[in-house]
Amino acid sequence: MNIAILFGGSSFEHEISIVSAITMKKVLKKTNIIYIFVSPDRAFYLVDTAKINSKLFSSGEYKKGKQLTLKQGGFFVDSMFGLKTVSFDGVLNLIHGRDGEDGKISSMMEFFNIPFISPRMEASALSYNKLYTKFLAESLGVKTVAYEYLSKNDKRKIVMDYPVIIKPVRLGSSIGVSIVKEPSELDYALDIAFEFDTDVIIEPFIEGVKEFNLAGCYTNNWELSIVEEPQKEAFLDFEKKYMDFSRDSQVLAADIDDSLKQNIQENFKKIYEPLFLGSIIRCDFFVVDGEVLLNEINPIPGSMANYLFNDFEGMLERLFKNLPKEQKISIDYQYIHSIQSAKGKA
Amino acid sequence: MNIAILFGGSSFEHEISIVSAITMKKVLKKTNIIYIFVSPDRAFYLVDTAKINSKLFSSGEYKKGKQLTLKQGGFFVDSMFGLKTVSFDGVLNLIHGRDGEDGKISSMMEFFNIPFISPRMEASALSYNKLYTKFLAESLGVKTVAYEYLSKNDKRKIVMDYPVIIKPVRLGSSIGVSIVKEPSELDYALDIAFEFDTDVIIEPFIEGVKEFNLAGCYTNNWELSIVEEPQKEAFLDFEKKYMDFSRDSQVLAADIDDSLKQNIQENFKKIYEPLFLGSIIRCDFFVVDGEVLLNEINPIPGSMANYLFNDFEGMLERLFKNLPKEQKISIDYQYIHSIQSAKGKA
Repeated sequence: MNIAILFGGSSFEHEISIVSAITMKKVLKKTNIIYIFVSPDRAFYLVDTAKINSKLFSSGEYKKGKQLTLKQGGFFVDSMFGLKTVSFDGVLNLIHGRDGEDGKISSMMEFFNIPFISPRMEASALSYNKLYTKFLAESLGVKTVAYEYLSKNDKRKIVMDYPVIIKPVRLGSSIGVSIVKEPSELDYALDIAFEFDTDVIIEPFIEGVKEFNLAGCYTNNWELSIVEEPQKEAFLDFEKKYMDFSRDSQVLAADIDDSLKQNIQENFKKIYEPLFLGSIIRCDFFVVDGEVLLNEINPIPGSMANYLFNDFEGMLERLFKNLPKEQKISIDYQYIHSIQSAKGKA
Repeated sequence: MNIAILFGGSSFEHEISIVSAITMKKVLKKTNIIYIFVSPDRAFYLVDTAKINSKLFSSGEYKKGKQLTLKQGGFFVDSMFGLKTVSFDGVLNLIHGRDGEDGKISSMMEFFNIPFISPRMEASALSYNKLYTKFLAESLGVKTVAYEYLSKNDKRKIVMDYPVIIKPVRLGSSIGVSIVKEPSELDYALDIAFEFDTDVIIEPFIEGVKEFNLAGCYTNNWELSIVEEPQKEAFLDFEKKYMDFSRDSQVLAADIDDSLKQNIQENFKKIYEPLFLGSIIRCDFFVVDGEVLLNEINPIPGSMANYLFNDFEGMLERLFKNLPKEQKISIDYQYIHSIQSAKGKA
């Protein structure tokens, strides 16, 4: 297969997207990868797969590459004989954070009729925003951690017992996240969070909570990963998560009983189908007092959570063959014709 | 001002978008309008403002016009000397239904850094889908009509008393909507709705319910329209709504007391701010037993609800001067640099 990997973007997670993208080269051994970089100022660049490395971007050298234009049916490169299509079978959206996870890339792929793996627009809007994820989970009967919500201009008052964890609603990779042990620390933590976002949610911080991750997709069958119990400290800071995005070898399944595993899988399926069809997502769950709670949806997980799957490359191919189809709308101008007739103009 | 009007799109409401766009020419008397048509197959065409009429589109003659390319900073036209920018101050998104109201146009305008009037992506995702609108309203303390929800593959069973009204969740302009008086009619009505969408909501149909519409935006002040009591029959079918989209002269305010008016205005403001900043929306309310209930949000109302405002053209200019700014993200590659240092490569 020929897969175009879109990465970079105008995002706080721009650099970890580069790491994720480079990791794919090690993981996708039989695939012909076409790298398309979205620069910080949102131009598209074709990157030589043989030469890709992180320095190419940090040095700005990528700018010497070919710039691409997005038009109906694909990406195009200027050539001596006019625009030439960049040839591939489909796009893998690997932009973490803004642009990739908020629905912009999906919007454009759909508009320009390019097959792509990524949560579609609605799925993006609901999972990119942690508050809306709560609404979604609730409507699907999936339990989540209790929460409060504060907007930048709201009074800085919470009802919940300490310790709490503060999260900007629209960011991943622990950016802007703080654990707050007592009321006197709240203000500072909110200052940090509001540097990154206009809205935050506040959840109880549960020391030593059991956490389990599951990734997957639906091709014409459910393809679910192993359940992983991530090793962790209080929580991963950005640099540690950053290293985490370059994982490329399979990890061990968590040592849990079948009923808990099934429970986690059922919750994943409730979230995934039908909203997330066409995407590979990772859901992170907590288990508290025997209850499975959705902690977060990762709509574009680090290195696509490849390390949780037996046959990641095969799954990617199967997913490309089973992407959701956009509804066809045929426009016949019958209303305009009938109005013209009524006016005697037809 | 020079305003580019985007209209058409791959939408069931393609034709009424054309009607809305042409209506703007009568309404915007001091504005220089640049018309950009999105064809049914989603190519961009520059349309001559002097020559615009509905037949240009129904006949396919628009295809003789210039095709445009979307790139960073604007729309571009091929000229003898390479690409040339189409010059305007901002875009008014006037695409009803898919592409316009679902967030695609907003995504692209934001990505390509073009100032635009339209609900932003999150606002689009939540208001384009009537189920998500319910979640949103609930979270903001705005009451709505009771509802049930059915997905295409769900059992066709409802709990609510008849008569009910069936609505596809993602369509406007009454497309696919039916009133169902008794259980025996349910199946047929659902068949119709599911032709247009995978999901529907069902609400009680309240005969003779009082309905009030209010449109508006926030510039650096609230600019709210008069409250209109739309004249109506059981409900407007598509052809009647279609004619409705060409309204261009101001209507009379509803004869209601100040406290009801204020109540409606307060509910509008709760919905609008901050999610809908940058857009002009119309909210349709029901009043049942003295309670104000949100019926629908119209994220891109027909002919922008110009007929509800005293100074629509002035408001449009003020809104263009007060659009929400995208958060700046500066990317300095410090993590990549520090990892390279750690590896001794820097």
